[in-house]
Amino acid sequence: MTEEKHCLFTIFGATGDLAKRKLYPSLFRLYKKGKLDKHFAIMGTARRSWTNEFYREVIVESISGLIDNEEQAKRFATHFYYQSHDANDTNHYVVLKSLGNQLKKKYDTDGNQLFYLAMAPQFFGNIVHHLKSQHILTNEGFEHLVIEKPFGSDLKSATTLNKEITQSFAEENIFRIDHYLGKEMIQNISAVRFGNLVFEALWNNQWIDNIQITFAENIGVENRGEYYETSGALRDMVQNHILQVLSLLAMETPDNFTENEIRKEKIKALQAIHKYTEKEARENFIAGQYTAGYFEGEHFSGYREEKGVADNSLVETFVAGKFLINNKRWQGVPFYIRTGKRLTEKGTRINIVFKNIPKNLFVTQDQKTVQSNILTIYIQPTEGFSLSVNGKEFGPGFNLEPIKLQYRHDSDVLENSPEAYEKLIMDALNGERANFSHWDEVARSWELIDMIRQAWDNHHHKEIPSYMAYTMGPHAAFELLEKQGAHWIWKPDEWYVQRGKLNRY
Amino acid sequence: MTEEKHCLFTIFGATGDLAKRKLYPSLFRLYKKGKLDKHFAIMGTARRSWTNEFYREVIVESISGLIDNEEQAKRFATHFYYQSHDANDTNHYVVLKSLGNQLKKKYDTDGNQLFYLAMAPQFFGNIVHHLKSQHILTNEGFEHLVIEKPFGSDLKSATTLNKEITQSFAEENIFRIDHYLGKEMIQNISAVRFGNLVFEALWNNQWIDNIQITFAENIGVENRGEYYETSGALRDMVQNHILQVLSLLAMETPDNFTENEIRKEKIKALQAIHKYTEKEARENFIAGQYTAGYFEGEHFSGYREEKGVADNSLVETFVAGKFLINNKRWQGVPFYIRTGKRLTEKGTRINIVFKNIPKNLFVTQDQKTVQSNILTIYIQPTEGFSLSVNGKEFGPGFNLEPIKLQYRHDSDVLENSPEAYEKLIMDALNGERANFSHWDEVARSWELIDMIRQAWDNHHHKEIPSYMAYTMGPHAAFELLEKQGAHWIWKPDEWYVQRGKLNRY
Repeated sequence: MTEEKHCLFTIFGATGDLAKRKLYPSLFRLYKKGKLDKHFAIMGTARRSWTNEFYREVIVESISGLIDNEEQAKRFATHFYYQSHDANDTNHYVVLKSLGNQLKKKYDTDGNQLFYLAMAPQFFGNIVHHLKSQHILTNEGFEHLVIEKPFGSDLKSATTLNKEITQSFAEENIFRIDHYLGKEMIQNISAVRFGNLVFEALWNNQWIDNIQITFAENIGVENRGEYYETSGALRDMVQNHILQVLSLLAMETPDNFTENEIRKEKIKALQAIHKYTEKEARENFIAGQYTAGYFEGEHFSGYREEKGVADNSLVETFVAGKFLINNKRWQGVPFYIRTGKRLTEKGTRINIVFKNIPKNLFVTQDQKTVQSNILTIYIQPTEGFSLSVNGKEFGPGFNLEPIKLQYRHDSDVLENSPEAYEKLIMDALNGERANFSHWDEVARSWELIDMIRQAWDNHHHKEIPSYMAYTMGPHAAFELLEKQGAHWIWKPDEWYVQRGKLNRY
Repeated sequence: MTEEKHCLFTIFGATGDLAKRKLYPSLFRLYKKGKLDKHFAIMGTARRSWTNEFYREVIVESISGLIDNEEQAKRFATHFYYQSHDANDTNHYVVLKSLGNQLKKKYDTDGNQLFYLAMAPQFFGNIVHHLKSQHILTNEGFEHLVIEKPFGSDLKSATTLNKEITQSFAEENIFRIDHYLGKEMIQNISAVRFGNLVFEALWNNQWIDNIQITFAENIGVENRGEYYETSGALRDMVQNHILQVLSLLAMETPDNFTENEIRKEKIKALQAIHKYTEKEARENFIAGQYTAGYFEGEHFSGYREEKGVADNSLVETFVAGKFLINNKRWQGVPFYIRTGKRLTEKGTRINIVFKNIPKNLFVTQDQKTVQSNILTIYIQPTEGFSLSVNGKEFGPGFNLEPIKLQYRHDSDVLENSPEAYEKLIMDALNGERANFSHWDEVARSWELIDMIRQAWDNHHHKEIPSYMAYTMGPHAAFELLEKQGAHWIWKPDEWYVQRGKLNRY
């Protein structure tokens, strides 16, 4: 038997996109599995004046793709209640509290509460303050706060925000979402590292030459231009997703596989990242902005032509960089990272590039070098691994050729994989924090991002390197590796080519 | 331009099966590639009285599957000459010499000679003796002797034979064929070991738990019962193929990839194999003989019912055993070997079983253990590699599941692979000895085989463990590993199952 969760959810930003696209479908999935059943209620709140009836219609519409039983869907929707709300108006919290108390009784929620902040961060402080001052927090059951990214926009603003929310919630009740952490393959990083002797034994600077993390998007900023102008790729992707992945790759082996031990090691890894001088940071981090380009005959606008973007914007849509980690395991191993919009191909991948064999026994006239072994972890849009090894080329002679041992999921396996949000909500209900960011991680990440941001801001006032849409970023991003004798491991994805699928999503 | 070889071949046993099935097709392949062209001739000799014309018809027939140009095939056949011959009659060598001298002139073979002994070993000594005494060996060009296995039937007979042939040929001109050594994947063992940091770094007793070599046949002794009665699996397979493969797997890294250095290391590895006491040998080597059985409804006879086999035969059609190697790299790592006839499936495979992860971080109620990583080298009937690794099972929780990263050749790649004999002949012409057995290897192998043979012979006078046809050998072969906490890595070959192919050949 699946154990049913008892909980009153309060969703701030209930009319928003995120709620409709991610939260409601995920909650419905949990409902279909019986993890939510009779003893839960959802208070949706936002500025707009909606009725419960209208709200429930929105709910049913948002889950329409998942319904296989109309009755069930309707029953699910009856658990939803809407309360119009001005986050800054104290009186409104009184109304919320009153509705909440009714629902607690009606659904017998054991006093458990989950607050989900799915809205603009400027309101977070005020909301959280009122939850405490208006005694909505009662300590009857668990009281968990789920916060969407971004958590601040630099170390200073993040610290201010964190001070505000920690006045009402203890760190262990705060669930800062980084939705990448819920992805199967991200969790798989630990499985690969610690579940396989062949990799664990080699996971250090004696055997690894460099590690590459690429988060590539082929879409542009779409209709998020206005938001993006206040963010940029560094804040939008590096501060959270990329540094999280990096810390999972770099951390020491935890004493056991509990969230506390893992977190401890992740934070230690982030702390060990080398702090660059401003000059070093400029040399090692490359910004870029896309200009117009063509793909398969179609024209795509440059970033400055996008809606909501300034004509002279200096915001980066691309970052490439090199992190170094000052510890025994990683001394001397560059962690190259790269992310951007309007790149050639959509794909999130990690490449562990091993060192070359100490002595090439197979040197011939035809072949002077042997390709290094590479472990690739595919995160999306396909999930899986590959290991590039060398085998003997068929036929006479003894040339080596690279061979890819691979295991990648076909899309139907992907479809069966639980949605990241479903897992994250379940974790938040269970108080499982392994897949959420701890304040120490967030703070350290912002410190690193600020270091880069500052170096850039003090330098390119009037210009930013450009790259054509549907290329892999500015030239400097390639030079960054080339000057160290390395290169980005990235080729058109033969996995899709083989299947005759377009590699655009 | 391919460089044409100049050579006079003398084939003893020219009317035999081996010559027809392997040698003539291989020579024709070399001809089609221009490696043999104008300056070669082949003297075929055997007891039967054939004419040149008849011999050439046999040649054309033996290559019939390879002909795409009738003219070319006929031209090829004109290089063949037949001489009836009694190996023990000195006069016959005079005739051979005279024909040889004519052919040397006619084809301008630069005095190069290749002698191929494709016949019963009891004649080898006499033939080789006469090649020298009758001055067929002249030292004008290279003079290479190619000898088919078996080379003796124990250390004593092999030593005698070797003394005889080394009176006429220096060791570096003797090419003892072990046709497995010519196979792509056998050569690939060195490519995998030394061309990949991820494997080279782990190739020792710190990381490897055990190594398994399986040479499985699903056929019985067919029409070779009479021969097999004098041989058995130990002599037929272990002495040569299995010990060769074992030495390639176990040898230290050669200083460079030359035949001399490789040979040196292979011999050192064989020398380091632990010499068992008779009692130990009996405990660690299991003989077996197949009894009648069924496969897919068809009945198959037991070994003692086969043609040419004694009713009370004690000859083993199966061997399983454990070799230990007393050196720093392999101390404590068992090399399990297994070969037999009428086993479940045809297949030659090497499994490198790595140790388990030092600490299983992923212990849960559902999962107490994690499967070890396994590198599999497939030699035949498919060629390739796989690496079994652990990944996270999809869905909630954190169970690990084994995932097979694999690369295996489809049969059309196999078809394009040069036949083992073609490569071996070319190597013999070029004086490349890496893929032939050196006397020191042969001698050491016999010493090891004699140790086992003796232990058996002194023990099971009247009985031999039996196994049903189409099973994987007697029960004791499984216990051998189980008593050490290991097990044979062998499952029905999913690679064929996936492709809907029967796994019988």
